[in-house]
Amino acid sequence: MNPTSTPARPTLQIALTPGTIDLAWGHPAAEFLPVAAMQRASTAALQRYGAAALTYGHPAGPGPLLDWLCQRIGQREGRTPGLHEIMITGGNSLGLDQLLTLCTVPGDIVLVESPTYHLAVRILRDHPLTLVPVPADGDGLQVEALAETLAELRREGKRARLLYTVPTFHNPTGISLSAARRQTLIALAEREGLLIVEDDVYRELAYDGPPPPSLWSQAPLGVVARLGSFSKSLAPGVRLGWLTASPSIIRRLTDGGLLDSGGGINHFTALIVTLLCESGDYDAGVAQFCNTYRARRDALLGGLAQALPPTCSWYRPSGGFFTWVILPTGMNSRALLPQAEAAGVSFIPGPKFYLEPRGENTLRLAFSYYPPASLAEAGQILGNVIRNFGR
Amino acid sequence: MNPTSTPARPTLQIALTPGTIDLAWGHPAAEFLPVAAMQRASTAALQRYGAAALTYGHPAGPGPLLDWLCQRIGQREGRTPGLHEIMITGGNSLGLDQLLTLCTVPGDIVLVESPTYHLAVRILRDHPLTLVPVPADGDGLQVEALAETLAELRREGKRARLLYTVPTFHNPTGISLSAARRQTLIALAEREGLLIVEDDVYRELAYDGPPPPSLWSQAPLGVVARLGSFSKSLAPGVRLGWLTASPSIIRRLTDGGLLDSGGGINHFTALIVTLLCESGDYDAGVAQFCNTYRARRDALLGGLAQALPPTCSWYRPSGGFFTWVILPTGMNSRALLPQAEAAGVSFIPGPKFYLEPRGENTLRLAFSYYPPASLAEAGQILGNVIRNFGR
Repeated sequence: MNPTSTPARPTLQIALTPGTIDLAWGHPAAEFLPVAAMQRASTAALQRYGAAALTYGHPAGPGPLLDWLCQRIGQREGRTPGLHEIMITGGNSLGLDQLLTLCTVPGDIVLVESPTYHLAVRILRDHPLTLVPVPADGDGLQVEALAETLAELRREGKRARLLYTVPTFHNPTGISLSAARRQTLIALAEREGLLIVEDDVYRELAYDGPPPPSLWSQAPLGVVARLGSFSKSLAPGVRLGWLTASPSIIRRLTDGGLLDSGGGINHFTALIVTLLCESGDYDAGVAQFCNTYRARRDALLGGLAQALPPTCSWYRPSGGFFTWVILPTGMNSRALLPQAEAAGVSFIPGPKFYLEPRGENTLRLAFSYYPPASLAEAGQILGNVIRNFGR
Repeated sequence: MNPTSTPARPTLQIALTPGTIDLAWGHPAAEFLPVAAMQRASTAALQRYGAAALTYGHPAGPGPLLDWLCQRIGQREGRTPGLHEIMITGGNSLGLDQLLTLCTVPGDIVLVESPTYHLAVRILRDHPLTLVPVPADGDGLQVEALAETLAELRREGKRARLLYTVPTFHNPTGISLSAARRQTLIALAEREGLLIVEDDVYRELAYDGPPPPSLWSQAPLGVVARLGSFSKSLAPGVRLGWLTASPSIIRRLTDGGLLDSGGGINHFTALIVTLLCESGDYDAGVAQFCNTYRARRDALLGGLAQALPPTCSWYRPSGGFFTWVILPTGMNSRALLPQAEAAGVSFIPGPKFYLEPRGENTLRLAFSYYPPASLAEAGQILGNVIRNFGR
């Protein structure tokens, strides 16, 4: 809508204001997106598969990519998906959308940790479901509170169908669910017949050693549907991910009308990504992303540590794209935003990530997009704005 | 499930039985899929866009592809979509799925011409909607019957939300809605506030002169949402199409959670297809497909004319992938199928395409996949099987 900088029909989603370090966008480091590797893989995929790359793909996704994923998941997570326990998705957003369309009925209750990924909430709200928030703290989802919510629902004669959660390198907070809570959560979900939808999009971006084990890898079959993605570890533009779940859930999706009619989601791109993964370029890219984002995290956290007053605190994420700042009680991040933007930094105020009216004194910062110097500068600017706020 | 011919995890959707000419599959001519053109376009797109081809795309799809489509639609259809009257979809199946998710509420009544594309019915049934069939004949949807259905619903205090129809080169029958009925349908839908979802997937494959005008191009704004696709005119594996509709419908989809979270559907592939379209390879490919499929249609219809008994009839399609055979009354196409398969030809029995139990003496034949000699042979085999049926 800005006639000087935006064409009538843009090509990209991101829209930046010149002169602003905009930490609202959880977008990848553009300079490290694998242009050359995708060039090689495109050429190789069309050479290897020819017309087979361009016709209707198998509804579960191409076998070679599923085979590669199974091997990698087995090596990294100690559990290999069975033959009918994995499928390719069109990214986690579309995977979630399809799970909701095909595995819920109108009026179903869906539990959502709060705060949570705000755009997943938008996908959930596009379906005729009833959302119920469950609080989270510095150790992730409060499993005790979840148990109470489930008990209360049962007293009302209701039952929750599924739980949406981001247990690893959480969006927006960056924290991971503690090991103890993971075990309690899995046991509770199994006992209650609750399907856990585990949004595992940041697993590959781990900066301080291996990520925590996925809920999927530790749970009995059927308790967890885990959404994995190439969006953060390769490139969001490929719109490609995978789902590991019970054969009955995988079958519900692969036998649904959408894939029966159109064949595999993103078949052409899936074959290109197959070649890229098989070549070793994927692993090399993940390593480079981890080094890049680790340095960016450290630059932002370093800036915050230097500049923010001692009344502020923030989480130190071991992976993913985000950190979460807690302002002094009474300081409102929505009121802070225009002053921060006037000073050259933007962010998303915390209340955006809660289902209920909460989080007034919190905000989310993404450290993925900008180089370290900009992130350190953003920390300084934010510190100044906070120190001067309300004066 | 066939251990001798199918790997545990296949790559393609199609599964053929050796020795059978399988006219059940509405799949493209593999030998004319544009492998070399896609190779050129992939290289060019990554050169032109670099990292911008790999990050989050604009929710409506990339501007250059929308611009190209608008120009082409304007030239061919005499109506150019306005700035917010078009968006890129992930193919017609996903476009339909998203329309249903975002533009209906549970319990909405959806009218469906019968017979119709059986897999669209599966997508419709994956949503909490009530389907009501409206009969079609050799001139397409019976608009008088539609008016009666709408009146009857109104007497019951109900209202239909939308109509799903394939008015041009219909699947399964191959016929096109007559010009007179198009006008009556548009006027009726406008009067009744009925949204027409026009599945226009075969428009580019016209073999006897230009296709009939789309309902979208002739209707007032807001009456028709038209689903167009690259699946038949370029390659189904790209999973790419477009939607022309009112700004309010386009906005509902582009502002929905799915695209807000993931950005444009198939952004990377959409940029490759942009380059392919701009290069002229798209138009050249469409011309080649039309020549190919015209010859295949003529071969199949020639075979049927030579071999089928005079008690049989069939439609002569002017475009698309299919013809529709009407057997003598009392002859059951489901009973015919095993005998045809034993003789080396397969097809889909007509009842599969009806919502109500009808069409026992009909069947669908696809002429898209096989070369002319095989199609002529299939006609001969089918004629023999029909002549000997029940003897």
